Amino acid sequence: MTTRQRPVPDGLVEAFWEYERALMADDVATLDRLFAPGPTTLRGDADGLLVGHDQISAFRSSRGGTPQRRIVQTHVQTVDDDHALVVAVTELARGGRGQQTQLWVRTADGWRVTAAHVSAPGPALDTRIWRLVGDPLVPAIGPGPLDGETVAVKDVYAVRGERIGAGNPAWLAEAREEPVHARAVELLLEAGASLRGIARTEEFAWSLAGVNAHYGAPPNPRAPRRAAGGSSSGSASAVSLGQASIGLGTDTAGSIRVPAAYQGLYGIRTTHGAASTYAVLPLARSFDAVGWLTRDAGLLRRVGEVLLPPGPRNPASDLVSVPGLTGLAEPEVAAVVDAFAAEHGAMRESWDLTELPAWLAAFQTVQAWEAWHDLGAWVAPRLDEIGPEVRARFEAAALVDDEQAAAARQVVGRASARIRELVGERVVVLPSAPSVAPLLGADRSAGRQATLLLTGLAALAGLPAVGLPGRTRSGLPTGVCLLAAPGRDRDLLELAIDLT
Amino acid sequence: MTTRQRPVPDGLVEAFWEYERALMADDVATLDRLFAPGPTTLRGDADGLLVGHDQISAFRSSRGGTPQRRIVQTHVQTVDDDHALVVAVTELARGGRGQQTQLWVRTADGWRVTAAHVSAPGPALDTRIWRLVGDPLVPAIGPGPLDGETVAVKDVYAVRGERIGAGNPAWLAEAREEPVHARAVELLLEAGASLRGIARTEEFAWSLAGVNAHYGAPPNPRAPRRAAGGSSSGSASAVSLGQASIGLGTDTAGSIRVPAAYQGLYGIRTTHGAASTYAVLPLARSFDAVGWLTRDAGLLRRVGEVLLPPGPRNPASDLVSVPGLTGLAEPEVAAVVDAFAAEHGAMRESWDLTELPAWLAAFQTVQAWEAWHDLGAWVAPRLDEIGPEVRARFEAAALVDDEQAAAARQVVGRASARIRELVGERVVVLPSAPSVAPLLGADRSAGRQATLLLTGLAALAGLPAVGLPGRTRSGLPTGVCLLAAPGRDRDLLELAIDLT
Repeated sequence: MTTRQRPVPDGLVEAFWEYERALMADDVATLDRLFAPGPTTLRGDADGLLVGHDQISAFRSSRGGTPQRRIVQTHVQTVDDDHALVVAVTELARGGRGQQTQLWVRTADGWRVTAAHVSAPGPALDTRIWRLVGDPLVPAIGPGPLDGETVAVKDVYAVRGERIGAGNPAWLAEAREEPVHARAVELLLEAGASLRGIARTEEFAWSLAGVNAHYGAPPNPRAPRRAAGGSSSGSASAVSLGQASIGLGTDTAGSIRVPAAYQGLYGIRTTHGAASTYAVLPLARSFDAVGWLTRDAGLLRRVGEVLLPPGPRNPASDLVSVPGLTGLAEPEVAAVVDAFAAEHGAMRESWDLTELPAWLAAFQTVQAWEAWHDLGAWVAPRLDEIGPEVRARFEAAALVDDEQAAAARQVVGRASARIRELVGERVVVLPSAPSVAPLLGADRSAGRQATLLLTGLAALAGLPAVGLPGRTRSGLPTGVCLLAAPGRDRDLLELAIDLT
Repeated sequence: MTTRQRPVPDGLVEAFWEYERALMADDVATLDRLFAPGPTTLRGDADGLLVGHDQISAFRSSRGGTPQRRIVQTHVQTVDDDHALVVAVTELARGGRGQQTQLWVRTADGWRVTAAHVSAPGPALDTRIWRLVGDPLVPAIGPGPLDGETVAVKDVYAVRGERIGAGNPAWLAEAREEPVHARAVELLLEAGASLRGIARTEEFAWSLAGVNAHYGAPPNPRAPRRAAGGSSSGSASAVSLGQASIGLGTDTAGSIRVPAAYQGLYGIRTTHGAASTYAVLPLARSFDAVGWLTRDAGLLRRVGEVLLPPGPRNPASDLVSVPGLTGLAEPEVAAVVDAFAAEHGAMRESWDLTELPAWLAAFQTVQAWEAWHDLGAWVAPRLDEIGPEVRARFEAAALVDDEQAAAARQVVGRASARIRELVGERVVVLPSAPSVAPLLGADRSAGRQATLLLTGLAALAGLPAVGLPGRTRSGLPTGVCLLAAPGRDRDLLELAIDLT
């Protein structure tokens, strides 16, 4: 070891190598022992900073070991007999070099690490986020208003010459190359944007969680180790990380608004039918809507000018907040929505929401019937190829008969009319999702139903909805949703700029 | 700031924010002042660890600022009144979060950083290395002996449905989609390997430096801030970083052997004509040879079993080293080659190399004529679209007339016969390149001619050559080259395993 001025303190070298051996052997007990106990111990890597011995220990126990490596350089900066910084350059067996910086402190029990910072070379592409990426994957056709913008395309849109993967390896393996671009893709290219790549989706876009059973959970940079939100998960994470500026996705029942909320992004679900779904793999045609995510409201609107039909505008709208909706969210999320509503002078209004659970059940019945109608023939003999959560949805969908679907469709029709009546020409302020992004590994079933109660309104009535980023008191991203009458997408995009 | 037990020392917070403001303003003088002087100050990021204030200062002056960011969390671990570690979580304006760990020391002149470790989220793909990547870009056709291996394909090989980019944006923009895979690509797919992506090449593969004027210099992980070597630069860096296991490239005059040496990889240039160049963009057909790079000798051979024709084997060969060739390398490289030769009992032999410069000149004349013959019609009106070094080669090539080429071809023929005679049935041990990887930014012209003197032997005589990784006394990668008679590729691949 090379040293800085002072000699290396006694026992430090031995402790350093004990740690390294334990790391290579995934000896979690030794690693836990060599990290200082207590709430201020730190460990950071590309997935975020862990604070406190408990978080670090939980991380170690769950990750299943670290890539094999050897130490190729060490530098010690000795502070005093009891404190030293050790910087090591590592060479990974899989290739590439990394760096590890550790602050060591001598305690009564021996040397302990109080802070560690670890860097390792990444893969060619983050396969949790992307299936294909390029510089660019597809060049712009433009020039136009989106010159220089880059798009992460959800893997349910056709990209000419590529297959649609739909988040499922078996589907991808059997897919044919698409002969044309989806209309939305083509419009973005004509407007000057290029395609950065094809982003992961949850299987068949039928989930809100942000965890794909085959490709893993895309990261959520502003809420490390929490769900990305779905099903437009890859598009959202790509935008969060700055790997693309526009995340093109779909929103059948919240698949834009949920990742926008979980990751602190802007997002829009367009009026059902307003933006073309030509050459987009359907999930439930009565509800599927084009949507997109960005890091700023200005770009959100500029994309709307490209993808949405022109139309009359009426941006000056009364804002309304509905305590019965806000109250569906957890208190820290509701607090953000209430504060937003108060700041912008929203009127509080009581709605009769007793039928909402029934409406939602009807929505899910129609969605299931339509999903099975479009995908069932392919899915039926391949259920074993589908992750457990989405598989269970397809299995239930197979049991929905035409009569049940017809009855549900009647309920949806009534619900849609009633919701449109309630919204009127106002803009409703509500939570984009009922909670902040759940920790990865947490149970998702209850959260899904709670989420659908909020996101289902726009789905049932085919309304446009814009998600704005908020932040809870504990510093986590959340979303405020603006809902308006059908066709008022551009008004909402304008309002998103005015209100943020 | 949250603190650990002890209070934050006086003045540290102010120094921290002074540094942050200077960083955002790219105020290099202030940054230099706030980093401790002397040879032990450290700064590391994804591109490697800088050691000493001088290196750090030079880096700062050349990088042209850092991405804009804001600090979203800070944690201070106070060691004593004069020492503290500050860990900060950053949020980049372009998206994503990073981490910065700094050890601060109070000196007579104020607080100074003695060590810094910086992490920032990467792009969707490293465009210095790759043009396109996927999970996979093209799936395996196999199964076969290369199951699970991933290939970085140099951007001169046809990949069905993709264009050939040849390292030049104008060429790429005009290219058509390839109707079939290059034969070598197809064989790898049939053998079970998948394509990870299409890797950058230097323009038209006509360089050995590893710096592309349009896309930058791919990183060299084992020799940070030094050249990757070319022209199979992207393939080599991808393999070094573990982003692919096989780097498929070409070697006209050293384009496999040079990156192998600079990056410490295994590499083979095959016998001219032995492995199919079908659907590979030519540079100089008389010399172009298929080649590949790996991180281990076993995989190097396994690829050979797929791409090379079967043939008689004669692995037991006398090794010969030629002081006149070894002496063309710098002393620290020559020392590695001499040690290798001595260890493996190579006989020393003197060759008359007085004609070597003339042979090389003839080689370059023929190469230039052939390059112009294949590419001149396209290049002539587009010289402005080509980087200065390669452009100069094309401009010179345009002046080579048929008569000069014919005369040069005669010299090449005589040289080839003479070289084959000298090599005979032995295996010649020589340096893969005359120097370690040059620092990026260093003058390249002299190095190129010196390199060609060594790499040109195999090129002139169409010989197979295997590059083995070595390491100089100062710890930098270098290469030992094994050269044999035409068709003895498999013998060399066998020998590479036996000798390492």
